Amino acid sequence: MSSRRAGEDALIQELLRNAPRGSRLIAGPGDDCAVIGRPRDPVWSLMKTECLVEGVHFRSDDAPRLIGRKLLARALSDFAAMGGGEPRHALVTLAAPPDCTMDRLRGIYSGLGSFARRYGVGIVGGETSRTVAGFFLSVSVIGEIEAKRCVFRSGAKSGDAVFVTGRLGGSIKGRHLRFEPRLEEARWLTARFKLGAMMDLSDGLGSDLPRLTGASRVGYRIDSAMLPRATGASPEQAWADGEDYELLFTISRRQVANLMTQWRRAFPRLNLTRIGEIVRDRGTREGGFPISGYDHFAER
Amino acid sequence: MSSRRAGEDALIQELLRNAPRGSRLIAGPGDDCAVIGRPRDPVWSLMKTECLVEGVHFRSDDAPRLIGRKLLARALSDFAAMGGGEPRHALVTLAAPPDCTMDRLRGIYSGLGSFARRYGVGIVGGETSRTVAGFFLSVSVIGEIEAKRCVFRSGAKSGDAVFVTGRLGGSIKGRHLRFEPRLEEARWLTARFKLGAMMDLSDGLGSDLPRLTGASRVGYRIDSAMLPRATGASPEQAWADGEDYELLFTISRRQVANLMTQWRRAFPRLNLTRIGEIVRDRGTREGGFPISGYDHFAER
Repeated sequence: MSSRRAGEDALIQELLRNAPRGSRLIAGPGDDCAVIGRPRDPVWSLMKTECLVEGVHFRSDDAPRLIGRKLLARALSDFAAMGGGEPRHALVTLAAPPDCTMDRLRGIYSGLGSFARRYGVGIVGGETSRTVAGFFLSVSVIGEIEAKRCVFRSGAKSGDAVFVTGRLGGSIKGRHLRFEPRLEEARWLTARFKLGAMMDLSDGLGSDLPRLTGASRVGYRIDSAMLPRATGASPEQAWADGEDYELLFTISRRQVANLMTQWRRAFPRLNLTRIGEIVRDRGTREGGFPISGYDHFAER
Repeated sequence: MSSRRAGEDALIQELLRNAPRGSRLIAGPGDDCAVIGRPRDPVWSLMKTECLVEGVHFRSDDAPRLIGRKLLARALSDFAAMGGGEPRHALVTLAAPPDCTMDRLRGIYSGLGSFARRYGVGIVGGETSRTVAGFFLSVSVIGEIEAKRCVFRSGAKSGDAVFVTGRLGGSIKGRHLRFEPRLEEARWLTARFKLGAMMDLSDGLGSDLPRLTGASRVGYRIDSAMLPRATGASPEQAWADGEDYELLFTISRRQVANLMTQWRRAFPRLNLTRIGEIVRDRGTREGGFPISGYDHFAER
C-alpha cells in the first residue's frame, strides 16, 4: 500500500499515537467512526469528521449543491460502514477565500441541508471563517448504533468470504459527487447476518482492503477478474480508484449462499460480489494490482 | 455591531436558516454550544466545533504546540460559556499545504494532546488532508452538562448586572495562544448562583455583548470607565479587541454582593468586574465605543 492516502493514514495514526483516548472508547482512530460507550451498553455513540478541500476533493467548477451534499454523504458512508448507524446531529465548518460569492455559499449549504433532511440529520451549529487562500469544508456528525450490529474493521477471520457492493472505479467522472451512502444496505446486512469486518471504500479497494486485513491481522486472496467494474472502468481502476463509497465486508463461508439469495431479492438492482477470501497469513496479499501514487506527506 | 465577525455571525445564521434541526435540540446555532436532549433530562449533550486558519487565527511563525493548544482551548471556552460543561471526546481535522513539515504537524498535535489530557478530553479520531494552499485546523468536541447549570445567551433580564472575568484587550500580543478556558470559574459560578445569560468573549466585548443582549431581547448600559483592561490596553481596545476568552455573564442585582464576596475568596487573583446593567429597551446600547472593521463576507 503506497498510495497518497496510505501515507495520510499512517500520518494520522502517528500524530494521534500519544494523544489521550479519554474514557469509554470502544473504537478510536483507525476505524470508520469513533465508537463510544461501555461494552455492555445496548446502544453506543458514533462520531465522525470528514473534510473537503478545494482542488483535492472537489473542483472550483463543481456545482455548489453537490459539494455540500458530498461533504455530508462522506460522513454518512462511515456510519454505514460501522454496520448502519443512525446519524443524528452535525456541525459544519466552512472556511472560504475572499473571492467566494454568497451564491456559492448558499448553494453548498442548500445541498447539505437537503441531504441532511433526507437522512434525518439536524444541522445544530457551525463556524465560518475567511481564509487567505483555499476553500475548506468540514463536518462532524454524531449519532448512535445498536451495539449488537456494530461491525469493526478488526473482525475478519481466516476463511471469511470478501464482498463488495456496487461497481468500482471511475468515480471521479461524477459518481463521487452523487453517491448514496449505503446506510440502508448496511442496516439490512447487520439485521440478518453476522459480519466479520466492514468498512466503506473511500480510497480504493487496493488501499482499503489492506487496511481492513491489517486491522484484523489477516491476509487476503482476491480474484481480480471478479472485481465488479463501473462502466468504462478497467480492472486496474476498479482496484485503485478512490471514492467508490461502496461497502467492503467479510462474512463466514457458511452464510454466503443464504446472503446471496436474500440480497438478490432485497436489492435486485445493486450488485453484491464475492471478490475473494480472507487467509490466516498476514503477509499474503494476492490478486489486485500494484498501486503507485504520490504520497503527500511521506517524504517529509 | 459592524465587525468582521458580526458579519460572519449573520452569515452562518443565514446559511443555516433553512437547514433541518433534527430532534431534541435545546439550543442550536447562535449559542456557544449546541445543546441536545429532552427538556426534563438531568444531563444534556453539548457539541462544539472550532477552526483555526493560518493567517487569520495564527501566524506561520507561531509555535506549533501553542497552535494545537489554542484550537482545543477555544472549544473548551465554549463549554465554559454554557455554564461549565464537561468536554469528553474530540475529533481533529488538519489540512496542510505541501510545504508543511512533519515537525510542525507533530508539534501541533503534541500541544493539542497535552492540553486534552489536562482537561480529560479523549482524542478519538480525525482526518488529515493536503491542501493546494493554506493551513486549516478544525476540532469538534462532544461532552455533557447538568441541565440545571446550563446557561444560555438568551436569559438576560432587565435589571441584571453585567459582569466580565479577567482583563480585556491586547490578547493578540500573545494571550490568545496561552489563555486558560474558564471552565473552573464557570462551574464554580453555576454551582452557587443562578445566572441570567452567559457567553465567552471570543470576538471582543463590543461585538459579543450585543450578541448576548440580542439573543435575550434586551438592551445594555455599560460604564466604559469600568472596563477591566489588560496591561497596556486602552479602553477602546478592551471594548473592541477579540480573543479575550473571558466570561461575560448577567446576574440579578440581589445576588451581586454575595457573588463579589465569595468570588474574592475563591479566585483572589482573577478579576471579576461589574461593567454595567441590562435594560428593558432593546434599542438601548449605551457606553462602549464605535466598532469599525472590515466585514469579509458582507459585501457579496
